Amino acid sequence: MTSRQYGRVMQAEIHEQPQVITNLLAAERDRVWDFAAKWRAHPPRGIFIAARGTSDHAALYAKYVFETMNGIPVGLMAPSVATIYQAKVDVRDYLVIGISQSGEAADVIAALELANRAGGETLAITNVGNSPLAQAAQQTLELHAEPEVAVAATKTFTTTMAALLLLSAAMGDNAALYAELARVPELIADVLTQEATLRAQIAQFRYMQECVVLGRGYNMAVAYELALKLRETCYIRSQPFASPDFVHGPIAILAEGFPVIAFANDGPSLPSVLDVLRKTKARGADTIVIGNASEALHEADIALPVNQGQAVPEIISPFPAIVAGQLLAQGLSVLKGINPDKPRGLRKVTITR
Amino acid sequence: MTSRQYGRVMQAEIHEQPQVITNLLAAERDRVWDFAAKWRAHPPRGIFIAARGTSDHAALYAKYVFETMNGIPVGLMAPSVATIYQAKVDVRDYLVIGISQSGEAADVIAALELANRAGGETLAITNVGNSPLAQAAQQTLELHAEPEVAVAATKTFTTTMAALLLLSAAMGDNAALYAELARVPELIADVLTQEATLRAQIAQFRYMQECVVLGRGYNMAVAYELALKLRETCYIRSQPFASPDFVHGPIAILAEGFPVIAFANDGPSLPSVLDVLRKTKARGADTIVIGNASEALHEADIALPVNQGQAVPEIISPFPAIVAGQLLAQGLSVLKGINPDKPRGLRKVTITR
Repeated sequence: MTSRQYGRVMQAEIHEQPQVITNLLAAERDRVWDFAAKWRAHPPRGIFIAARGTSDHAALYAKYVFETMNGIPVGLMAPSVATIYQAKVDVRDYLVIGISQSGEAADVIAALELANRAGGETLAITNVGNSPLAQAAQQTLELHAEPEVAVAATKTFTTTMAALLLLSAAMGDNAALYAELARVPELIADVLTQEATLRAQIAQFRYMQECVVLGRGYNMAVAYELALKLRETCYIRSQPFASPDFVHGPIAILAEGFPVIAFANDGPSLPSVLDVLRKTKARGADTIVIGNASEALHEADIALPVNQGQAVPEIISPFPAIVAGQLLAQGLSVLKGINPDKPRGLRKVTITR
Repeated sequence: MTSRQYGRVMQAEIHEQPQVITNLLAAERDRVWDFAAKWRAHPPRGIFIAARGTSDHAALYAKYVFETMNGIPVGLMAPSVATIYQAKVDVRDYLVIGISQSGEAADVIAALELANRAGGETLAITNVGNSPLAQAAQQTLELHAEPEVAVAATKTFTTTMAALLLLSAAMGDNAALYAELARVPELIADVLTQEATLRAQIAQFRYMQECVVLGRGYNMAVAYELALKLRETCYIRSQPFASPDFVHGPIAILAEGFPVIAFANDGPSLPSVLDVLRKTKARGADTIVIGNASEALHEADIALPVNQGQAVPEIISPFPAIVAGQLLAQGLSVLKGINPDKPRGLRKVTITR
């Protein structure tokens, strides 16, 4: 493969996102509303989510969604509790969700099997409908994202977030939330129309070797996800933080010109993000802002606007924002002479036992 | 202050740990056994823990402890769910624990107040018995760690872990677990007797600018905590990972000679840590092992043995291991000409709202 072809697969999969999310909603909306009926009648006493890597970032998004929209406490499972310690966790009346795009993550499967034995309700979210994960679960929510080939996950990340938001709307019988979710494909399509403008900015990052990525609330998950994409596809030592956690210690690493990327979208969490951005800037950091928040973009050293001028509810703002992040990672990877479709030493399916 | 005095406060506080944990157990054992009686009779349907920074790492340890020892699902609260989104999370029949050494973390206090209103049971773990956090909680477990003055927390981290382990033993009426906890002061004292040997190794790290810190299971929390200490006190860009998560992508950043620190203690999670250590070593990384696991120490490029030759149950192994990590951070900080008692731009009490 010549370097001219580097990143073609990842780019194509980034571009599929409006369509595959549309497909997911068309195929699953009614079915999810149906199987969620029992949870509308009797909400689970808690939700536990087992996942690794990119899927775990979607789980982090879901934690905020289910807690704020459904009022249900959410825990992210430590898979080793099931696989290494074989603990019997009492998940009766809990909904236990396992996420794996391939459906082959052995520790996530083990977590669902343990939950079944403990009397919990289990749901698989996967892109492979007949995968071992789907077979281990009482219920499956399929992503309909078509096979994902690039090692760096893109479309399965956003479709997983969409599937979880769909489930939240169905469990809350929340038509308004569903209407917001239904806007996601058009908001992502809008980012993709701005691709050339965004790509024109990428050259500035050519020699960036490390960075911090900040987010808060609904946008914390995408800070984690972008940090992972930059590590995987650009070999950049990037570290994600919830913006207030960054002020609790890690801010000490900041030196003049250190790049701090922040997701900043209008909504209740914006003041906190702005506050941390200003503190990092006061220490001489270079600030890079991704999002729709004009105030933050205006103050940034590098502004990567997303859906500018549009009113976007904060809960769906992570979708278009991470697509901008995916384009940044893909473009920078190719610029650095790396092939993001197949970064060194990584495989698409990782089976942790 | 001359540089000769740098780090004296942090060093003194590291050395207080055997005594303050002894004090905690003497003062609180019976009281905790008493107030845990209701949870022995009716275990909470879930435990939610709100904390930031170092306290959040103790919470991560507690997640593994309560799930494996008590079978109770544990979630780590995202404080912004309470403070920013003001969500009404249904925590009836849940135990909600807020941790803050100063007892002044505004968002942790807000999380407990929200839990009180929602009908949950609330417990404060704090070093300041009459602090706002203690006042917001129905029950308080005081650390008895004496005031902590160094900005980099040490003794309040281990006493918080000890308080949580004490609570787990009390909720499970688990005398065997309490007996293991009671060994912690002597195991830490043993590390402190080896201080000179450990300090003789520190010079090798003088020019380390970045690193990865790995742990798994009970020892994941101390990987997070050491990474934070190295950032706070040595300005090293250190990033923690659960060892299997590191193989899911981040391993791509590894280049020849990149330092990978791993906590490796004998117990069920050791094979997983060994596996990841070998994978990183195969890519040319420099491996640094902290712990009691002879097999891992033997294969390491730099071995920092802890309680070598002693049989230490895995559940208490993080205590002596992090004390070795604290000594490393403190010594390296001073060697680099930094004052770990008061690193640049950090304050002891951070009040996130």
